[in-house]
Amino acid sequence: MERIYTGKTKDVFKLEDGNFLLKFKDDVTGENGVFDPGANTVGLTIEGAGQAGLRLTKFFFEKLQEKGIHTHYVDANIAEATMTVKPANVFGKGLEVICRYRAVGSFLRRYGAYATDGQELDAFVEVTIKDDEREDPPITSDALDMLGILTKEEYAVLKEQTQKIGAVVKAEMAKKGLDLYDIKFEFGREQGTGTILLIDEISGGNMRAYKDGEYIEPLKLEQLMLAGE
Amino acid sequence: MERIYTGKTKDVFKLEDGNFLLKFKDDVTGENGVFDPGANTVGLTIEGAGQAGLRLTKFFFEKLQEKGIHTHYVDANIAEATMTVKPANVFGKGLEVICRYRAVGSFLRRYGAYATDGQELDAFVEVTIKDDEREDPPITSDALDMLGILTKEEYAVLKEQTQKIGAVVKAEMAKKGLDLYDIKFEFGREQGTGTILLIDEISGGNMRAYKDGEYIEPLKLEQLMLAGE
Repeated sequence: MERIYTGKTKDVFKLEDGNFLLKFKDDVTGENGVFDPGANTVGLTIEGAGQAGLRLTKFFFEKLQEKGIHTHYVDANIAEATMTVKPANVFGKGLEVICRYRAVGSFLRRYGAYATDGQELDAFVEVTIKDDEREDPPITSDALDMLGILTKEEYAVLKEQTQKIGAVVKAEMAKKGLDLYDIKFEFGREQGTGTILLIDEISGGNMRAYKDGEYIEPLKLEQLMLAGE
Repeated sequence: MERIYTGKTKDVFKLEDGNFLLKFKDDVTGENGVFDPGANTVGLTIEGAGQAGLRLTKFFFEKLQEKGIHTHYVDANIAEATMTVKPANVFGKGLEVICRYRAVGSFLRRYGAYATDGQELDAFVEVTIKDDEREDPPITSDALDMLGILTKEEYAVLKEQTQKIGAVVKAEMAKKGLDLYDIKFEFGREQGTGTILLIDEISGGNMRAYKDGEYIEPLKLEQLMLAGE
């Protein structure tokens, strides 16, 4: 099995049948030893973090599969902390697609002149470029199209899929008393067909959630979501 | 005459007839005594800078008027460095609309992973929020709509007007051997009618231009443009 990529929190291997194997690691992003899902550097290692992230990812991807939403998910092996996925190519060098239900984080840092902390947002979708060096800048549909990253038609699909997937995740979380404030996704084009697929993972580090008005950190969120599953 | 606003480079007075008078000052934006049109602080005072900016503004607004493009321009008094304008309300707390023909400046800082320095862009339009504290963040049409700043329909008008006005400015500059790389505009809604108008000024500080591959600083640009006019 050939390792083709070593990521901050996952390694990627190529399988014989053309699929890929994602190995979830216990490394989490953060700064100065503090877990921060928004950070671009590995901050610390937490035993079991990889498995917990995979368990939640499996949970959500299987819910999406039931609803007929296209994802790269094939299956998962919790004991090995690995997930098998279909081959897909990211848009450009990778985009993050964010769905926002409340004004917090970078949205508030940018648009604080027009929004208050925690203000409700109507499943607002925005796209940022994955570019650590340039601090993941936001980008418009016009710019994505002009730079050859994503066509206008693909953007429309991406936005619709993001809102649909976000709604599934939000509803599952609400069942556990968790209020989803925002969530980030990655998408790609399926190799061969070009179909737009949800890729990567859906774990605590991809979202901000609150319970009774209190922020719930990613590992705690995974525990709450997986209790009884 | 009541002064209703003191800006970094212009003061604004209310006239008896409901129009407004803009007084162009010799203060220019910059940092540490160096003229930088993109800066948010007044850096230095250059004698004649206000008059030169007004002369170029008058030149362009009268060209736009001839072409039937809606602007706030009524007339100008070069000796007094004043311009009379129609009353208009800015969108939200003010937006900047940028038209880009070449990848330089903040576009390149954000999207340098996908564009090379000076690469041609097809009259690309983007909007930033005027917010010194938050470093004038870019904003999408979706966000402008959601935050109640600008409807989708108004965004479409803004984009079309920006490309139309940019083309007029670019063509006039080409006549003087100047190559327009990018330009920023401000728009507002005309009081009473709601018509979208080009407001503010069109001077050297609003644009980046090159001549024979060399960057031309704003005051030099104004001299070159106004020679023989």
